[in-house]
Amino acid sequence: MSSVDYSQFSYFNIYFPAEFVAHVEINRPRKLNAFNKDTWTQLRDIFHLISTDPNVRIAILSGAGERAFTSGLELSPELLAMLNGGDYEEERARFMTRKAIRDFQDSISAIENCSKPVIGLAHGIAFGLAIDILSATDIRICTSDVQFSVKEIDIALAADIGTLQRLPKVVNSLSWCKDVVYTARVFGAQEAHIQGFVSNVVESKQDGLEAAFELAKIIVAKSPVAVQGSKHLINYSRDRTVQDGLEYTATWNAFAIGKDMKRAVASTMSKSKPQYGKL
Amino acid sequence: MSSVDYSQFSYFNIYFPAEFVAHVEINRPRKLNAFNKDTWTQLRDIFHLISTDPNVRIAILSGAGERAFTSGLELSPELLAMLNGGDYEEERARFMTRKAIRDFQDSISAIENCSKPVIGLAHGIAFGLAIDILSATDIRICTSDVQFSVKEIDIALAADIGTLQRLPKVVNSLSWCKDVVYTARVFGAQEAHIQGFVSNVVESKQDGLEAAFELAKIIVAKSPVAVQGSKHLINYSRDRTVQDGLEYTATWNAFAIGKDMKRAVASTMSKSKPQYGKL
Amino acid sequence: MSSVDYSQFSYFNIYFPAEFVAHVEINRPRKLNAFNKDTWTQLRDIFHLISTDPNVRIAILSGAGERAFTSGLELSPELLAMLNGGDYEEERARFMTRKAIRDFQDSISAIENCSKPVIGLAHGIAFGLAIDILSATDIRICTSDVQFSVKEIDIALAADIGTLQRLPKVVNSLSWCKDVVYTARVFGAQEAHIQGFVSNVVESKQDGLEAAFELAKIIVAKSPVAVQGSKHLINYSRDRTVQDGLEYTATWNAFAIGKDMKRAVASTMSKSKPQYGKL
Amino acid sequence: MSSVDYSQFSYFNIYFPAEFVAHVEINRPRKLNAFNKDTWTQLRDIFHLISTDPNVRIAILSGAGERAFTSGLELSPELLAMLNGGDYEEERARFMTRKAIRDFQDSISAIENCSKPVIGLAHGIAFGLAIDILSATDIRICTSDVQFSVKEIDIALAADIGTLQRLPKVVNSLSWCKDVVYTARVFGAQEAHIQGFVSNVVESKQDGLEAAFELAKIIVAKSPVAVQGSKHLINYSRDRTVQDGLEYTATWNAFAIGKDMKRAVASTMSKSKPQYGKL
Amino acid sequence: MSSVDYSQFSYFNIYFPAEFVAHVEINRPRKLNAFNKDTWTQLRDIFHLISTDPNVRIAILSGAGERAFTSGLELSPELLAMLNGGDYEEERARFMTRKAIRDFQDSISAIENCSKPVIGLAHGIAFGLAIDILSATDIRICTSDVQFSVKEIDIALAADIGTLQRLPKVVNSLSWCKDVVYTARVFGAQEAHIQGFVSNVVESKQDGLEAAFELAKIIVAKSPVAVQGSKHLINYSRDRTVQDGLEYTATWNAFAIGKDMKRAVASTMSKSKPQYGKL
Amino acid sequence: MSSVDYSQFSYFNIYFPAEFVAHVEINRPRKLNAFNKDTWTQLRDIFHLISTDPNVRIAILSGAGERAFTSGLELSPELLAMLNGGDYEEERARFMTRKAIRDFQDSISAIENCSKPVIGLAHGIAFGLAIDILSATDIRICTSDVQFSVKEIDIALAADIGTLQRLPKVVNSLSWCKDVVYTARVFGAQEAHIQGFVSNVVESKQDGLEAAFELAKIIVAKSPVAVQGSKHLINYSRDRTVQDGLEYTATWNAFAIGKDMKRAVASTMSKSKPQYGKL
Repeated sequence: MSSVDYSQFSYFNIYFPAEFVAHVEINRPRKLNAFNKDTWTQLRDIFHLISTDPNVRIAILSGAGERAFTSGLELSPELLAMLNGGDYEEERARFMTRKAIRDFQDSISAIENCSKPVIGLAHGIAFGLAIDILSATDIRICTSDVQFSVKEIDIALAADIGTLQRLPKVVNSLSWCKDVVYTARVFGAQEAHIQGFVSNVVESKQDGLEAAFELAKIIVAKSPVAVQGSKHLINYSRDRTVQDGLEYTATWNAFAIGKDMKRAVASTMSKSKPQYGKL
Repeated sequence: MSSVDYSQFSYFNIYFPAEFVAHVEINRPRKLNAFNKDTWTQLRDIFHLISTDPNVRIAILSGAGERAFTSGLELSPELLAMLNGGDYEEERARFMTRKAIRDFQDSISAIENCSKPVIGLAHGIAFGLAIDILSATDIRICTSDVQFSVKEIDIALAADIGTLQRLPKVVNSLSWCKDVVYTARVFGAQEAHIQGFVSNVVESKQDGLEAAFELAKIIVAKSPVAVQGSKHLINYSRDRTVQDGLEYTATWNAFAIGKDMKRAVASTMSKSKPQYGKL
Repeated sequence: MSSVDYSQFSYFNIYFPAEFVAHVEINRPRKLNAFNKDTWTQLRDIFHLISTDPNVRIAILSGAGERAFTSGLELSPELLAMLNGGDYEEERARFMTRKAIRDFQDSISAIENCSKPVIGLAHGIAFGLAIDILSATDIRICTSDVQFSVKEIDIALAADIGTLQRLPKVVNSLSWCKDVVYTARVFGAQEAHIQGFVSNVVESKQDGLEAAFELAKIIVAKSPVAVQGSKHLINYSRDRTVQDGLEYTATWNAFAIGKDMKRAVASTMSKSKPQYGKL
Repeated sequence: MSSVDYSQFSYFNIYFPAEFVAHVEINRPRKLNAFNKDTWTQLRDIFHLISTDPNVRIAILSGAGERAFTSGLELSPELLAMLNGGDYEEERARFMTRKAIRDFQDSISAIENCSKPVIGLAHGIAFGLAIDILSATDIRICTSDVQFSVKEIDIALAADIGTLQRLPKVVNSLSWCKDVVYTARVFGAQEAHIQGFVSNVVESKQDGLEAAFELAKIIVAKSPVAVQGSKHLINYSRDRTVQDGLEYTATWNAFAIGKDMKRAVASTMSKSKPQYGKL
Repeated sequence: MSSVDYSQFSYFNIYFPAEFVAHVEINRPRKLNAFNKDTWTQLRDIFHLISTDPNVRIAILSGAGERAFTSGLELSPELLAMLNGGDYEEERARFMTRKAIRDFQDSISAIENCSKPVIGLAHGIAFGLAIDILSATDIRICTSDVQFSVKEIDIALAADIGTLQRLPKVVNSLSWCKDVVYTARVFGAQEAHIQGFVSNVVESKQDGLEAAFELAKIIVAKSPVAVQGSKHLINYSRDRTVQDGLEYTATWNAFAIGKDMKRAVASTMSKSKPQYGKL
Repeated sequence: MSSVDYSQFSYFNIYFPAEFVAHVEINRPRKLNAFNKDTWTQLRDIFHLISTDPNVRIAILSGAGERAFTSGLELSPELLAMLNGGDYEEERARFMTRKAIRDFQDSISAIENCSKPVIGLAHGIAFGLAIDILSATDIRICTSDVQFSVKEIDIALAADIGTLQRLPKVVNSLSWCKDVVYTARVFGAQEAHIQGFVSNVVESKQDGLEAAFELAKIIVAKSPVAVQGSKHLINYSRDRTVQDGLEYTATWNAFAIGKDMKRAVASTMSKSKPQYGKL
């Protein structure tokens, strides 16, 4: 459906279940969808493509198979070597560690920076990196059998690619948040729902995909100018004072208000469904 | 009860149901309390008056009639023209759009910047602008039949007068928040309560007014020095680091601690009710 | 168990119920554990000691006796004189007021700035200062009979040592938060739990201590490098943009990744329990 | 020349020496152009009018007569009473002090917030308030006989309407800045020039006006879209990170690039002088 | 000298006049080194390469030929079309404008974000884009015949790729800065020197290159760990509070202090010249 | 003259050359006033004492003897061991390095955080740490023979106790600033003056002390309420937006305006010299 080439990614399947909807599936099911270096590079490249592809207005992210969204980072010798700075000596090795983390962070941030909304569907095992990734999506759904864990503390790591930054800003209780960060304990769908980490719990992965597709269809029928603006402005304002958020928003809408509003108003009058151009 | 003239506002009723309590009612019930340009200008002027009126210590905001708090912005040709920059050409028209949004934002911010607390009572239809306004109040109550909707996306607009800035900072779950922003779906009292958008749900509008009056009476019996300081300091600190909030607060209390504390302590000792001066 | 001298504090008991676990108990039970000037100075000194004591990896904070966590500040003539600037005249007295508040704030912030996590166990009366202190802990547990109150407004004071800064950042609903701040009303365990102020409710103080010890034992078995890093990074990121939080975190882990990760990974491989060095 | 009524201001003369150029003159020469309460209210109102008057593209601010730009605030009993809170008691009086300062600050900020550039011409005595006002202008010129002084310390006041905020951001050396703030010593044209406070020194007030008119004529020939954008964006970026400044600027130019650029490019090609519409 | 392939850039010459020194020359001399779209993409790619190339420790940036550093952006029909959003309609075209500016900004920021210091050598014509680029370098030198101009206002553009953000932060006087921004007037070497825009003025381009090479040789003999850290930390701290700058710096040096310090101290003792490893 | 005991500091002489004036002299002349660990701890303690000593209103900081202000940090084996984390292993040692830097930063920040202004008199050798210290003073004077150097890069260190944060904010040109940071080259009085690092150059150390005493006498005759407020407010505002600086300043003056203003105004009327109380 899309003219962009999404077939180049060995670790991901990309489907188009409906017009304007992309379904991105982490595809290493036999490894519980664990991430190696190529996986995270591909994740970044996919969301860069989606961000500017006018044929996509929303993305859904899940894992392939039933068993896992992702079990997290694959602790291969190569990865550990990279995190420890490769062949560089002492403080130079530390520069390389820092750079590797920054690169990895950029891959995860590609989801947040993607101009289109992303729905995360968590199912099965969702450990470590799964929380980093899901915290960077816009709307989170999970299955009733999901097993979440902020796992990093169990490899003696302060989570460094987004969980410590984003999780406290998307959930209810900081007390709960520190509990699951310090203990790495597994928590389930109900707890995630009460805490606001997910806004919908479904029975099975299949139900989750259907719920995500339903939600996606509603959103892609809206003006992409307004949807993409809303995503950007919520994320921008989250990090700044209310006054700065307001001023930036007025400046944004000074260019973003236009034909779509006229179309929407006219459709309301005529009780027809508005058709919006690509973006 | 107040010496300030509150009778000048054609779109609002202002009552004084108890000493120090103002009840501001949006009064266009036949239009479902929809806002035209004059309505929002009056809203700003009213809260400017209340902010410095020593006879008012708290305000309650509701809609007139049973059907609606407000159905939102009235999409008149005049309003659409103004949002599109009036007679100015191209980029100059955009300057005018930006200015119109900034002015409208200032009207809503007048509630947040009002030195006295504001209780929002949502009932019936509470669409679009209703969420912008309610997010700027301090305490929110709703009736069980309320219908909320972040409606802007349905007119192809990224909400630009406060919802995208304030709603994520007053509720529980960012996932839920983006869901209702992107879809414009209606949500009710229970969902609003679970998400923390309202802190009290009542049966009817009448019950809501009584609950608001009860709450107001408790608050106006407290020191207005302490209540107004608390509102200002919570809002200031919400937008800044904990350290900056603490330093600003110490500087504030360096002037705000005084006679009222002596009165309060003496009343505690004598088990009498303290009387506080006007502010 | 610890070589640091914790016996010097007249208003606190300090126990070591398990390896690496300190239990700090406010010890003025006949005064409902109210704070006078020495109490808060000692609180600061204790958490400074714990922060650099390699024999402590986590602290639990409770009140002595069953009746109260703390009833708050003791409004002695000395304290009131100090808050009013002692013998200094007019604006000079206000400088002294400001300095007294800043010093008191630093005592409370010693808990947040302590490099080790702190679990707060609230029980019985937990008024005023109790909320300031608990908001600065990392994880909060309470008993079912707890009585919380943001009490400051009842002495005509805008709370100035942390509640107005931290409480809105650790709980669910800003509407609820302003309600309890403006009214000083008592709220109980269930309400605190729903709002996310506490993440666990237990039957009795004894159950609370056991729950806290269980939680503490899980956390002290983790790498202190990772736990202390996580606390610092969550608090740092809470106050800044996601981007700034990410960059700071990468810089932090450039030095913090090291032997513990190798130990943890090796333990995972060998299914043994990792032993971590002191910090 | 302008359709806006500028004749209503008793303490200011407003001239239009050339198309699109307003010359605002503080007009209390017998009082050395000192400011009383009405003067600063009028200052605010004038710059609000100019900000939205399409017939004005730049303003020049000077004092009437040869002797003074302004000698600063007139310390009348009324003013001192207002600064001390009027009839209110103790901490309530302090609230009024704070409000009076905030209002006065807003008058000065009206110059900075004016969408059009403002050239300040300092001459003769320029004490206290003069520095607050001049620091809020965009471009500063002075005569060789000017006498500047950050005078506030001599009335036991930490300057509170802009000098302490803006002066350090517009000059060279913070050491010099603190020297003149702490000592209130008079400094002249040469020192002001070396420190970058002024960017041009002229012989006499008449020369200064001519220099200002020349500069103004150059600027009003440029696109007002670009000039007003530049003023706003420099001020916005001064207070924020380079990254935030860049993002805001891109968002701004997304609406501000338009017909004027086409006109400018066409004029360059045809070597004609571009004509820009009003703004 | 370097193993990285720098020969792929059609609009730039890259020389290695000394060990660890790269000389990047904008190479469109017949077009006065004007930038088209490929030029700025190549600029970004070159500084990305240099940033991670251990064989380069410093870069010098100049224009090819005597006549110009760069005359700025080439106003081709393609460029104008891109800035106006290409084929997209109305507000969608504005999204494209914004994206084009953001991309262009990233090219310029590649100089600031390059981990190695960059010396800018300005000579001949240095208009528009030249100021954006030079403001993003670390150290600026110019020839006595240089002609600077913040030219953007002459094409009705508020400069949007860095000048308005960075120029005020690298020079002396904000009054002077707004003067040259609003008027687009040409200024020369002496004025640039007095304002601190350049820190060295030389007779000719050849002298400038020699001065730059001399400076570069001094810097490449220093520890690259310390030099790159200093660049990063100065830029980070410029945009933040002193306290945030200090905390970030302590965290940085927690990993960056190491072998090089031991080498440096040992060399000082033995009065030998330290040899530092690559970075 | 002062009741505080200043005789306890082995590495500093403290004189009181005039009422309210403290002269702090670094007293290790045979070591060129180099700093070991005790020196910097004492520096911190001295400025803490001065900050709250009502008998001191201003401090002057110089080195003992003619040869040096300070040659900087003494690179003893103890210091190097501490910077490298003592006996701790790997990442734990890095935690200790970070803590040592934070402690050292706090010593230097004690000058900036001292409520009284500090005049720095630089003379002879002023290397490394000297720049960190001087950048934290308020007003800087130097002798004509001074030799400044940002020396840290020569021990392979990115300066980490204040120079990289404060120097760019107190001087003219960022290009010059990076030049002296990257090269560690020596610069003299004239260059320091042109760049605004010092605001006064004198012939000899004796002249410098006299100039400092003269300046100090002028400042101590002013209201300490206004002087200390000005120092605090300039430093606060330097790091924040103009709007935040203004709001904080209004809140500050709400308590700081009082008797001293009345005294000052009365003195102006009666042409007498005002007498201000201690602070």
